[in-house]
Amino acid sequence: MATVRSQKNPIIATADVKPLRDDYEVVGAFNTAVTRLGDEVLLLLRVAERPLANNDKATFAPIHDVDKNELVLKEFDRSNSQIDFSDPRLITTQEGTYLTSISHLRLARSRDGVNFEIDDTAAISAANEYETFGLEDPRITKIGSTYYINYVGVSPAGVTTCLISTNDFKNYTRHGVIFCPDNKDVVIFPEKINGKYFAIHRPASGLFKKNDMWLAESSDLLCWGNHKFMMSQGTDGWDCARIGAGAVPFKTDAGWVEIYHGADRDNRYSLGAVLLDADQPWKVLARTTKPVFEPEADYECKGFFGNVVFTCGLLCESRRAGMPKVDEKIKLYYGASDTVTCYAEIDLPDIMASLK
Amino acid sequence: MATVRSQKNPIIATADVKPLRDDYEVVGAFNTAVTRLGDEVLLLLRVAERPLANNDKATFAPIHDVDKNELVLKEFDRSNSQIDFSDPRLITTQEGTYLTSISHLRLARSRDGVNFEIDDTAAISAANEYETFGLEDPRITKIGSTYYINYVGVSPAGVTTCLISTNDFKNYTRHGVIFCPDNKDVVIFPEKINGKYFAIHRPASGLFKKNDMWLAESSDLLCWGNHKFMMSQGTDGWDCARIGAGAVPFKTDAGWVEIYHGADRDNRYSLGAVLLDADQPWKVLARTTKPVFEPEADYECKGFFGNVVFTCGLLCESRRAGMPKVDEKIKLYYGASDTVTCYAEIDLPDIMASLK
Repeated sequence: MATVRSQKNPIIATADVKPLRDDYEVVGAFNTAVTRLGDEVLLLLRVAERPLANNDKATFAPIHDVDKNELVLKEFDRSNSQIDFSDPRLITTQEGTYLTSISHLRLARSRDGVNFEIDDTAAISAANEYETFGLEDPRITKIGSTYYINYVGVSPAGVTTCLISTNDFKNYTRHGVIFCPDNKDVVIFPEKINGKYFAIHRPASGLFKKNDMWLAESSDLLCWGNHKFMMSQGTDGWDCARIGAGAVPFKTDAGWVEIYHGADRDNRYSLGAVLLDADQPWKVLARTTKPVFEPEADYECKGFFGNVVFTCGLLCESRRAGMPKVDEKIKLYYGASDTVTCYAEIDLPDIMASLK
Repeated sequence: MATVRSQKNPIIATADVKPLRDDYEVVGAFNTAVTRLGDEVLLLLRVAERPLANNDKATFAPIHDVDKNELVLKEFDRSNSQIDFSDPRLITTQEGTYLTSISHLRLARSRDGVNFEIDDTAAISAANEYETFGLEDPRITKIGSTYYINYVGVSPAGVTTCLISTNDFKNYTRHGVIFCPDNKDVVIFPEKINGKYFAIHRPASGLFKKNDMWLAESSDLLCWGNHKFMMSQGTDGWDCARIGAGAVPFKTDAGWVEIYHGADRDNRYSLGAVLLDADQPWKVLARTTKPVFEPEADYECKGFFGNVVFTCGLLCESRRAGMPKVDEKIKLYYGASDTVTCYAEIDLPDIMASLK
């Protein structure tokens, strides 16, 4: 697989991002959606912030208080043996689970796709009861002149997927929860297929211990149904523990290509590709047996949660208007180690050859 | 709570129902949907069947084979200590979970609402990959002249809710999976509210260990969105372990009344009532602190899974066309001990008084 990582990686580090408040630090600027707006490449970053108040004795969970419309801190005593602090992302108590950080979505702009100017303020942050623990892992699908942003809303009610639309990345319209808990790793296809919109999503079956990828259809992008099973985790190897959609799918002559993430039993996250039927996108035509991209660089192996590459977006653009033929390479934006944002280019013919 | 159980209870016992095949026995005829068709009260029963092949050495899971379009048996060695047979409903192995019985939906008809003639054949049985472990817990919502039947489709892919429509209970149209896994206890409201259809559903959040009731809206009954949290299990007492919608909601002058089920920590299932805003049905106006109906009779306390009353349908009909004013009592059809079908009448003013 011919792959070139940017020599500027990480192209966005946590130190590049100003925290929204002086009493917080940025612990992650990663899992970014990507699109073009005018002459610019636009990233919508997930920025995770953690309160500076944390110390040896106490860990604080930041929570958006809807009534006060501000962040409040919930304190947990680190000497309390009833509380599990073993996962750096979570605080697990008998009454419930809390997050150690809260994420919002932040814009970054670039002319060359590698050097970005990052906003100092949030584009979208927690605003309602489905987002009290934050907003995570956005994807952008442009349909016509409208950009549809789906993201994970986290709250004690569960892990939901919500939708926002914008035409200018200045004014945003919230459309509420489009996939009920727990459901994440949603990507919306960039065009209708046989008159319907489609999305890949990943619901969870507790009874059967499944986290499979499913396909749903919609007439309006708001209500989704006719759910169809698409694929399970691999039986062994790199994607045997967990899978989910990554970047928004793109169309080729052979069908839709979805770059998805998979984790092995050691929680090592890599990226694979799956080829979906052009007209019946729930039909898997081919799937890579090996990753198309995996954690190798130092910044991909070490960090807040190491050995992770995770994409929420890529650019793979047609050189001819209206044609499915795409560039010879995909321009991959990805989160590394749940900490930083990186960039790599992968030759598309190599990916297509692996989908045979 | 003025409650009268039918002296004919159980009005349908397992012995009253002929198995579909000679090599199976009926172990449950319960959790029935109810509606009126012409002069008759129509029940759509969940009938659970178990292979007679079971013996001391082996338990068999019945599975619908989609390609062969027939039931096949998967054998499990009862002496294998790696397999968990402790729940009579389940066979839990390291590779996956299986069910000890398979359910289909069966019609029963009555003039008086208590004495039923039961069909010898299935109305609806497993037919696709989402139903390989069977169809469970139907609800019927009549809208215009069409009866919409939603039911739980169980397969290794998860616990989904599917939709079928019919005008005559002879010809059925399948509409696929309307709520993706795991999601059950779905009830569709019998009329549009401000131009939208609504349904109560119960998704699951593994991360936050929640099984809450949510509300969704739809334009076509097929695709659902704008999911809103409705209510959680109680903090203590009869519904503190698990809740879910029961019967199709009915409209009163005070708002929508939903009779739902709740279980306590001993898996004792009772019924409660919740009053929802007439125009914004995700808003809970009142909720009973005590059950409106609970397992007391012998047939409710003993059976395949004892101490369970569970409703999928009731009749509470307007005496004046188009008016929300309803009868003075609800005619409750309910499953007892996951085994038989029973009937009781509960005074509606008592329920309404408990919703203050």
